[in-house]
Amino acid sequence: MSPSTSLLEMVAPIEQDLLAMGEALAAELVTDDPAVAEMVAHLSRFQGKQLRASLLLLVGRASGNQAHEMPVVAAVVELIHLATLVHDDVLDGAEIRRQLPSINTAWDNQVAVLLGDWLYSRAFARSTGLTFPLASQILAHTTQAICVGEIRQALGRHRFDATPEEYERIALAKTGVLYGAAAELGVRYGREGQEELGGKMRLMGQDLGLAFQIADDLLDIEGEQAMVGKSVGTDIDDGKVTLPVLYAWRDADSNGRRAIEAAYLDPDCSDRRAALFVACDLDQGCRRARARADELIVRAQDRLLQLPSGEIRHSLERLLKFTLDRSS
Amino acid sequence: MSPSTSLLEMVAPIEQDLLAMGEALAAELVTDDPAVAEMVAHLSRFQGKQLRASLLLLVGRASGNQAHEMPVVAAVVELIHLATLVHDDVLDGAEIRRQLPSINTAWDNQVAVLLGDWLYSRAFARSTGLTFPLASQILAHTTQAICVGEIRQALGRHRFDATPEEYERIALAKTGVLYGAAAELGVRYGREGQEELGGKMRLMGQDLGLAFQIADDLLDIEGEQAMVGKSVGTDIDDGKVTLPVLYAWRDADSNGRRAIEAAYLDPDCSDRRAALFVACDLDQGCRRARARADELIVRAQDRLLQLPSGEIRHSLERLLKFTLDRSS
Repeated sequence: MSPSTSLLEMVAPIEQDLLAMGEALAAELVTDDPAVAEMVAHLSRFQGKQLRASLLLLVGRASGNQAHEMPVVAAVVELIHLATLVHDDVLDGAEIRRQLPSINTAWDNQVAVLLGDWLYSRAFARSTGLTFPLASQILAHTTQAICVGEIRQALGRHRFDATPEEYERIALAKTGVLYGAAAELGVRYGREGQEELGGKMRLMGQDLGLAFQIADDLLDIEGEQAMVGKSVGTDIDDGKVTLPVLYAWRDADSNGRRAIEAAYLDPDCSDRRAALFVACDLDQGCRRARARADELIVRAQDRLLQLPSGEIRHSLERLLKFTLDRSS
Repeated sequence: MSPSTSLLEMVAPIEQDLLAMGEALAAELVTDDPAVAEMVAHLSRFQGKQLRASLLLLVGRASGNQAHEMPVVAAVVELIHLATLVHDDVLDGAEIRRQLPSINTAWDNQVAVLLGDWLYSRAFARSTGLTFPLASQILAHTTQAICVGEIRQALGRHRFDATPEEYERIALAKTGVLYGAAAELGVRYGREGQEELGGKMRLMGQDLGLAFQIADDLLDIEGEQAMVGKSVGTDIDDGKVTLPVLYAWRDADSNGRRAIEAAYLDPDCSDRRAALFVACDLDQGCRRARARADELIVRAQDRLLQLPSGEIRHSLERLLKFTLDRSS
């Protein structure tokens, strides 16, 4: 069973909601400016697994939330995710996204920064039009946290002596909080008195998001561009010290550490990723990072038990496991 | 009387409101992340004339709006303006802002993109916490228009045959609409039944903002960095064809047009602005642009007559004239 088949099966219980989410998202990507429309058409082809929207809708259904605006809330979450993707590709200098040129490659950095801003503002405009202010409130604060996480990451380039805890704090902010917000909104949007369950699902979503980020960082180190569908090795090129490298650094002696630094910094190095595998026991670093992601998913599975058992919770359990098995 | 003295006098009737606005803005710039705090401290020194906040507060007072959250609404408008400044400096590659290194110079482009995103998200977070959703709604749509205007501008680089109307459409979107939103919110925030006056003041603000943008473009062509306090000549370096150049292009013969193109595009040109003055009658282009700004301010003055006469309307009249006289 390929990951995409398994993904389709696991979202089967919310198929109608996902269709409505897709329509709401498409409606937000309509613009009467022809130049922006062309970029948005390109962008639409980046839409991937929509895991954040699926998480929101699955948690919503599992917790008995029947608010009719749920697909729109999920679409707003995906819009914010799209905005972060576009800016991330600028920041990382990534050239390929889902087998296509990134916006910064197909156009340029200027336009990509502005398109990201436009997507953020569309998301906020749509969320302020919703019946309940909870989505605007949670998502505005979530976006702030994402930015702080990304700033910390940008300022922490080439910091090989960062601790795994520091890495996780940043990964939680830049990726985990949006999953957490999706899960919390799934429970709480349009309802009163669900703060406690909402908080627990937020933590579950954060665990999932953090595991997802670790899996993403592993793909950047271990993946092949043709399989992953986006540029690989960009973290190393960009000076980002991700969890596998942090572990490898901690295990290395002083010669090994110098070799790791050289792989990141030597101006003459043409394949930094290959050099890093030679410099240290990166396979072992990857194994340890994968073990940590497994651990987070187990914790998220425990938290899921707060939801009623049944077909939808089963889908959520599969969604958690999917994060670890994904190859793109 | 120096421009800054005259500015202080004209905002005297709203001195208390402006102080409250400044406090609200400072409160939004507090962060517990030390790295972000350092950037925000640097950014705070860019805070300039706060014309948008003054406009909102003056129009509010003149129209009898007594909503107690007005200073916070004005602070949110200034936050959005700060976000656009930070991203603009990235897009323009500007190195100096108010006699200080820009964020992209003092840190780097990555961090500046993220700080701009953070400022946008702070603005939206604060506006979603306001009592009335009008500010969030108007400002989310305004931000979208700003982005579309900036995208059009970015895609229109080196388009010498654009019409003055096309220039104005872009300038209205990237600058005019935020002034328009400030003036409209001044009338309407926290009150019902003020749509008509709000719409008229929005148009007044848009005229003012458009005139301000023309004046800004003139400073980039005619100003000296020491006086203006920010990099000058950056529009030309960045391929932006502003109103004075459009006029000069239309008046030039084919030799003159080739010389204008060379001033923008010749890779060996070390001072594009000086080359442009040699290439065409740019002084005449500047005169015509200044005349257009004057015309817009006269129209805005007419629109102001919808407000009750008195000290505050008089301040607004002076604010309009200030836009034309400013030297920084």
